[in-house]
Amino acid sequence: MHIRVINPNTTRAMTDLIGRSARVVAAPGTVVDAVQPTMGPASIESHYEEALAVPGLLEQIALGEADGVDAYVVACFGDPGLDAARELAHGPVVGIAEAAMHAAALLGRRFSVVTTLGRTRARARELADRYGFREACVAVRACEVPVLALEDPGALARLTAECRRAVEQDEVDAVVLGCAGMAAWCAAIADEIGVPVVDGVAAGTVLAQSLVALGLRPSTRGEYARPPDKPMAGLLAGFEIRADAVLPVAVA
Amino acid sequence: MHIRVINPNTTRAMTDLIGRSARVVAAPGTVVDAVQPTMGPASIESHYEEALAVPGLLEQIALGEADGVDAYVVACFGDPGLDAARELAHGPVVGIAEAAMHAAALLGRRFSVVTTLGRTRARARELADRYGFREACVAVRACEVPVLALEDPGALARLTAECRRAVEQDEVDAVVLGCAGMAAWCAAIADEIGVPVVDGVAAGTVLAQSLVALGLRPSTRGEYARPPDKPMAGLLAGFEIRADAVLPVAVA
Amino acid sequence: MHIRVINPNTTRAMTDLIGRSARVVAAPGTVVDAVQPTMGPASIESHYEEALAVPGLLEQIALGEADGVDAYVVACFGDPGLDAARELAHGPVVGIAEAAMHAAALLGRRFSVVTTLGRTRARARELADRYGFREACVAVRACEVPVLALEDPGALARLTAECRRAVEQDEVDAVVLGCAGMAAWCAAIADEIGVPVVDGVAAGTVLAQSLVALGLRPSTRGEYARPPDKPMAGLLAGFEIRADAVLPVAVA
Amino acid sequence: MHIRVINPNTTRAMTDLIGRSARVVAAPGTVVDAVQPTMGPASIESHYEEALAVPGLLEQIALGEADGVDAYVVACFGDPGLDAARELAHGPVVGIAEAAMHAAALLGRRFSVVTTLGRTRARARELADRYGFREACVAVRACEVPVLALEDPGALARLTAECRRAVEQDEVDAVVLGCAGMAAWCAAIADEIGVPVVDGVAAGTVLAQSLVALGLRPSTRGEYARPPDKPMAGLLAGFEIRADAVLPVAVA
Amino acid sequence: MHIRVINPNTTRAMTDLIGRSARVVAAPGTVVDAVQPTMGPASIESHYEEALAVPGLLEQIALGEADGVDAYVVACFGDPGLDAARELAHGPVVGIAEAAMHAAALLGRRFSVVTTLGRTRARARELADRYGFREACVAVRACEVPVLALEDPGALARLTAECRRAVEQDEVDAVVLGCAGMAAWCAAIADEIGVPVVDGVAAGTVLAQSLVALGLRPSTRGEYARPPDKPMAGLLAGFEIRADAVLPVAVA
Amino acid sequence: MHIRVINPNTTRAMTDLIGRSARVVAAPGTVVDAVQPTMGPASIESHYEEALAVPGLLEQIALGEADGVDAYVVACFGDPGLDAARELAHGPVVGIAEAAMHAAALLGRRFSVVTTLGRTRARARELADRYGFREACVAVRACEVPVLALEDPGALARLTAECRRAVEQDEVDAVVLGCAGMAAWCAAIADEIGVPVVDGVAAGTVLAQSLVALGLRPSTRGEYARPPDKPMAGLLAGFEIRADAVLPVAVA
Repeated sequence: MHIRVINPNTTRAMTDLIGRSARVVAAPGTVVDAVQPTMGPASIESHYEEALAVPGLLEQIALGEADGVDAYVVACFGDPGLDAARELAHGPVVGIAEAAMHAAALLGRRFSVVTTLGRTRARARELADRYGFREACVAVRACEVPVLALEDPGALARLTAECRRAVEQDEVDAVVLGCAGMAAWCAAIADEIGVPVVDGVAAGTVLAQSLVALGLRPSTRGEYARPPDKPMAGLLAGFEIRADAVLPVAVA
Repeated sequence: MHIRVINPNTTRAMTDLIGRSARVVAAPGTVVDAVQPTMGPASIESHYEEALAVPGLLEQIALGEADGVDAYVVACFGDPGLDAARELAHGPVVGIAEAAMHAAALLGRRFSVVTTLGRTRARARELADRYGFREACVAVRACEVPVLALEDPGALARLTAECRRAVEQDEVDAVVLGCAGMAAWCAAIADEIGVPVVDGVAAGTVLAQSLVALGLRPSTRGEYARPPDKPMAGLLAGFEIRADAVLPVAVA
Repeated sequence: MHIRVINPNTTRAMTDLIGRSARVVAAPGTVVDAVQPTMGPASIESHYEEALAVPGLLEQIALGEADGVDAYVVACFGDPGLDAARELAHGPVVGIAEAAMHAAALLGRRFSVVTTLGRTRARARELADRYGFREACVAVRACEVPVLALEDPGALARLTAECRRAVEQDEVDAVVLGCAGMAAWCAAIADEIGVPVVDGVAAGTVLAQSLVALGLRPSTRGEYARPPDKPMAGLLAGFEIRADAVLPVAVA
Repeated sequence: MHIRVINPNTTRAMTDLIGRSARVVAAPGTVVDAVQPTMGPASIESHYEEALAVPGLLEQIALGEADGVDAYVVACFGDPGLDAARELAHGPVVGIAEAAMHAAALLGRRFSVVTTLGRTRARARELADRYGFREACVAVRACEVPVLALEDPGALARLTAECRRAVEQDEVDAVVLGCAGMAAWCAAIADEIGVPVVDGVAAGTVLAQSLVALGLRPSTRGEYARPPDKPMAGLLAGFEIRADAVLPVAVA
Repeated sequence: MHIRVINPNTTRAMTDLIGRSARVVAAPGTVVDAVQPTMGPASIESHYEEALAVPGLLEQIALGEADGVDAYVVACFGDPGLDAARELAHGPVVGIAEAAMHAAALLGRRFSVVTTLGRTRARARELADRYGFREACVAVRACEVPVLALEDPGALARLTAECRRAVEQDEVDAVVLGCAGMAAWCAAIADEIGVPVVDGVAAGTVLAQSLVALGLRPSTRGEYARPPDKPMAGLLAGFEIRADAVLPVAVA
Repeated sequence: MHIRVINPNTTRAMTDLIGRSARVVAAPGTVVDAVQPTMGPASIESHYEEALAVPGLLEQIALGEADGVDAYVVACFGDPGLDAARELAHGPVVGIAEAAMHAAALLGRRFSVVTTLGRTRARARELADRYGFREACVAVRACEVPVLALEDPGALARLTAECRRAVEQDEVDAVVLGCAGMAAWCAAIADEIGVPVVDGVAAGTVLAQSLVALGLRPSTRGEYARPPDKPMAGLLAGFEIRADAVLPVAVA
């Protein structure tokens, strides 16, 4: 089984971190690789950056289809381009916000999300609602550490402090980490705060693996059917979307 | 007052149609122009196409800011890139699905949407939910005419028939047309079916005009503040996003 | 275009204030007048007063129909009698709570309402839910200044302070003023608190104007059809409701 | 214990019918009388008529307070003026839609309402939502018999047929009759359709009686406190609303 | 009329208290008795204990059917086994959480619940949602006094203090007591806090009595029909469930 | 890793079938066994039977704790006793309705459930709501084949026909099988109807395995803490619940 984790931003260090986090939890026979797009923002903390990350992400899905990838994990907590990616891929595509929230919901009744900047809280809230966790996700909190500063001294302490506030004030059964860049800290924070802590990169990897093990592929009819064939100016011109496959355009 | 209507697809004939529909309802002192992006799909009927339309749309917003545009209308019923566009623009940005649904809601209690292909129904449903019209929008119907075939013989008849079914089966106080390409048919269908019919291009134009008249500009703090400054690979490289403005990058 | 703004209470000074606020935002060709009922309470701060304001409001609608009015604005934040008024009028009828909430929703994702007395908060909440803004309207706050004391010294300061708390505690993209009597203070408060502030009288005026510009009239079938003809004891006896019009009863 | 059932319309025959239906289910020691207003419509089948019924209803509440009534039932399925009545009365006020829906909800999980004219369905739906029965009330149906024609030949058959459709198509555990004028037919229809049938007049009477037996009176603070004292032009001028009581104005 | 109140735990003192509370509010002609199961926990403060209380409760329903009981009240605020009990009984079965919430909802718009241990709050919240009171029930609070310590010195003071916080912080029109063991304190707390206080044992008794007075019995078709006949190992082996009755198994 | 699948009914053939279905999808290193209770009903098709299945299920959890089981799957589509089981177990407990719905939700936007008898539909609906899938689960259908007749000739055809109706009428992206006894038919039906079909036994197994792989254990504080220590009459008397473990009672 081949699972590809796509970091939708263009920062190599995050791609490497994400790959490591995913491989730790994968089953023995599962091959996991991690890639990143050739275009787009260095990190995603606004609707603008999320929108500009999506074409590069979709290009990676198209490349993955040529490589025979079985399932994809989209490793940004805004779950950018998830619906579009599902139209391209023949196997499951799982977002890390989606995966983390599903895993948290399976542990109990209530969870909180702790994300990076306050301005991204509304997007996490929107995703919780979209996935059915309006009641289960009792709060979305921010530690106000930017994505690219998560490795800085003091960042882990601020994040842990906010996770602890979630436990004390939100009465939750689990805490969800709201950024792929927090993946390495999952166990350390759980030890500190005494409730389960869910990292979406790991959760996305095992859930994608689960769907493949169940033999489940997205429906090819209705909303998620392949897009209709039509002219596309200037973006992803190197691929052709057919009803049954995504193909690289042959070079003359 | 200068309102710019952006057709997010790259089909010139639709841009022209949209411009005409917008100008008909604008107040005497309001200048309305219609533009389209330089990159992206010929029409938008899938999540994939919607995602690839957004970078070109955002480029038009950035160009509009340099032109001193007062408000924008995003003229595709999927309201692509609306949140991202609000981060860039200093004035209001209104989507046509949003505008049409608000206008329909002001007329009574219940409305139905009639859109093009069935596969786009879920996106319209999602937008209705997002804007607060889960109860008001009682059905989203499809006439199964593709966007670029709306001018074909028989298309109007199929669309009108589906609108009539909405009146008869959904008990609605209004019908919303679910595609910018249907803008010219609004009055004709209303005459046929006997309930008000709302076109989003016209509705978006008068609502954008209304917000400007009220002196209302989106908040510059919180979710819709300008995006943080950071490297962006390969897309919209010709602009710089500052906290107070979007600027074209000076050519040496 | 003739828009009539109806102050549903019987206090002349408020009617004058409301008329001025409406005229400021109307387009050049639009005639705006402001009227008040001949019966009912001096201000509306309870369900009891709201109920007793409605007959006089409906009388004004009936008189407006005889005058050929194109659209009405009901200028009390409880939106009294809105459904009943829609059954009488041939053109749009817009409530100011409705209008202000729609305008605020078009600016972003979240808004708060700041109203007069705490006891009216539940009604504002109920209207937010009715119009679809259960999620968007994150809080309804009260400054505890009665309607008829809004002109007193200190009232503006209390109102502004509560609006500032909304920005700081509710993380909103806009604030909605919860009383027609606050209409004149909209810009001043917006300058103080740094987010857009929406006044319903102005919003109602431009939205009513927009619906007329779009050629949209409420449906004449279903819930909002003219009421059936039947005996009415003691109230509004001077009018006859026919299927196609409201007529003053001829005096022998 | 003294319970007063108020028919909010001005048709004497309905008041008598309602009184009989209420007395049948009252406990031995409970005195039940039935009254009607001096002003307002002959029946209530529109928002307009409902609005004009409320002043007369409130006058009856004020008179009831002078009579020492312990609890009131508002016997029209639109529950007109319920919030306003609660501000005036020192004891419980129960609407018949409210009562019937609560009773039906106590019997199982799902119920349907069968009302008179289709145009009143939206109001019943709105009440179901307001009272918390959005999920429980699976359908609101209309038999298209006007209120004042419920005694005509064929009316019972049409109503029964619609109730049977509710059982067959809606999979409900109970049917609620959507008009006070249907009160006498409750048992006959239940025998025909084989599921419990709830009449709001009877349900309102026993629920009002229950609240009095529990010693529960509405709160005198917050939303339902007595209205503030202020001038009222032309309506209910014969009463004075004080913080602790409603008093008839003394005649000089 | 014979109403049986079932205390689902095995503590005799609570059964006696519950019986007294029920008899106080019953109408003169109503016989009320109180019973408890022969198996199960001494009190119910966890999902585990609730689950183990249900077989004994159902045994009491089966015995009650043999005794010709007209209606049952299940006197634990978790409403254990309510759906199952409705499948067995030919008459109404009312839970005390259900009853108290319905009664509180009839008094106004908003109520809070004050329960025993914090760990039971989620169950009360779940019931409020199930019964339709997601909006009406604004908070579920805990006084952190275990069920079997409610008679201890200081317990009433803690409970009253929490009820007062509900009034001050939740802006409620009523407070619901969240445990059958609090039944005797209802009036005393109401006097202290100045808003109506609802005890579920009393409310359940009068509501069960009301349903019987209305002649309403649960539907015998659909979800609440008698269970299908099949082997049952080790539990409730002394009864046979037939389509029309529950019968004690004849001893050879 | 040791996963135990518990069939909550007492029919051995179903336990064997469930065990086989679970083992097929488990990862190589995972040990899966299947057990059933010593008391309770032969199958579960009513609230009554579900309630009587729970004590035996909880006994199996207690035995599993003594055996060092890492995670449990509760293999009945009503997810009986799930909350109670989570209070006892130190590792994850997953219900098959829960698991199947989560898996289906990860595949797209909409799914339908096809269950056995119509009377169980309400329970499945209730679970969908509880888990957050009110919108995603667009219909719950019944094939009207009893659980113990699923192996009879014709049963598969009826089930497949109902699944096909779900695809055609509900516009779903996946179908969920609503009974553990349907586990073996998953792939065959998927081939027939052309959309993914989800079996909860398999889904529960891989999701339980995923949670263990992520190192996630339910929180030991709040709602799911171990139950308080107290007398328990007649049920599960062979175990002692301590704060840190479930222990078999030592025999003297």
